[in-house]
Amino acid sequence: MITNKEKAMTPNLPAIGRLASEISRANVSSLVLVHGGGSFGHPIAKQYSIEDGYKDQSQMIGFSKTRQAMTKLNKLVVDSLIQHNIPAVTVQPSSCTITKQGRINLMEEKPLKKLLEMGFVPVLYGDAVLDSDIGFAILSGDQLVSSLATRLEAKRIIVGIDVDGLYTSDPKTDPKAQPIKHITLPELRKMQHKITDVRVTDVTRGMLGKMLELIPAAEKGIRVIIVNAAKPNNVYKALKDEMFVGTVIERGEAVV
Amino acid sequence: MITNKEKAMTPNLPAIGRLASEISRANVSSLVLVHGGGSFGHPIAKQYSIEDGYKDQSQMIGFSKTRQAMTKLNKLVVDSLIQHNIPAVTVQPSSCTITKQGRINLMEEKPLKKLLEMGFVPVLYGDAVLDSDIGFAILSGDQLVSSLATRLEAKRIIVGIDVDGLYTSDPKTDPKAQPIKHITLPELRKMQHKITDVRVTDVTRGMLGKMLELIPAAEKGIRVIIVNAAKPNNVYKALKDEMFVGTVIERGEAVV
Repeated sequence: MITNKEKAMTPNLPAIGRLASEISRANVSSLVLVHGGGSFGHPIAKQYSIEDGYKDQSQMIGFSKTRQAMTKLNKLVVDSLIQHNIPAVTVQPSSCTITKQGRINLMEEKPLKKLLEMGFVPVLYGDAVLDSDIGFAILSGDQLVSSLATRLEAKRIIVGIDVDGLYTSDPKTDPKAQPIKHITLPELRKMQHKITDVRVTDVTRGMLGKMLELIPAAEKGIRVIIVNAAKPNNVYKALKDEMFVGTVIERGEAVV
Repeated sequence: MITNKEKAMTPNLPAIGRLASEISRANVSSLVLVHGGGSFGHPIAKQYSIEDGYKDQSQMIGFSKTRQAMTKLNKLVVDSLIQHNIPAVTVQPSSCTITKQGRINLMEEKPLKKLLEMGFVPVLYGDAVLDSDIGFAILSGDQLVSSLATRLEAKRIIVGIDVDGLYTSDPKTDPKAQPIKHITLPELRKMQHKITDVRVTDVTRGMLGKMLELIPAAEKGIRVIIVNAAKPNNVYKALKDEMFVGTVIERGEAVV
């Protein structure tokens, strides 16, 4: 969404600006923003196999470059938010987080919590982080969102993607695919196998990964809202609790 | 040094590149780099009175802008280090630090320590941070250096400035001023009043502030080396323990 995925290190500045303007207009309180790596972080991380952990010395500079690429994208995002008069403040995930086998293990969240208390809008992102077992790892924006929402006891998670939310089947191969407006966790679990089955395409694999990360947050009663952020005003509407194009995932049952 | 202090938001790219090349050639292990704000952080921080703490809503966007300006300068520094093949990695101080009345009160140092263990070169900087008492504050690079050196049990601190270290009096007003090559803490304490007396000029006030921050580290037995980083090869020589133009401060007495 915020980068051109076909071209390395190419931001989609109009999309960043439009989303910043929607967030500014919505003017909601206690907002945390998290963005992914797009064509900034992923190609370099892949080139140096950062997601596999530390194997040899040659990856060191690749880890540095991955971090730097993410800083660059984040700077563009925060610049745009500030231009839209949002008191946005970067919180670099790798400065306050250590993973274990790729899962968040340590996170110093006090600066983040204090930023929220004061009315700032913290901005985090998928990052290359240190890992207590495998040296380093990629912490995805999705894992970060889910973990932060739980730690901060968020009411809801709004996930912006570039399709109209979840479908009953893969819309790219099945002309009968229907968008899902509302789904409960038990229903989603049944569907999960279907999503797994069609994970041949990148988009679907990405979607399955997102779902698997977000389910733990939904299980805690946090409403997960998936919107097509590529369509103007959808993020604004989701923030304002108005009707939007997308999918709402709710727990749908009491946790015993 | 690394910015043009006369012109807002203007980096001194040749100086940044030269210093990166000196650090790369010296190739020392267990190195942490800290840089200041120069003409990036200071003018914006001053404009919004960030150093006075939170007074009203209008400072919010100024805090965001100060953070962003420092991110921008840091990006230029780390870009240059990576170009010189140094596995440099930014650690954003404000993501892992909270001050109390402007002094470091909480610092999550595990990611930083792990970076060092793995052979990365962490790069930190003076930053606008959250403060548990006054909302927010400026954490100077000097305070950060002194605190990190103590926490990480550093052997030495090398401080790069743009004059030839400490003088017996203010070289700008006293033609008899002599550079000091070596000084002990007891001798420095005697001199401190002199530095205070002449703190009419900006440079001297900056120097006094530096000294006051660094003394606690020197008290713990950490050698403090002040070099003229504006002169080529001085930082390289200091890193390699060769003769350099500058001042060495040593404890010079046993702490009882």
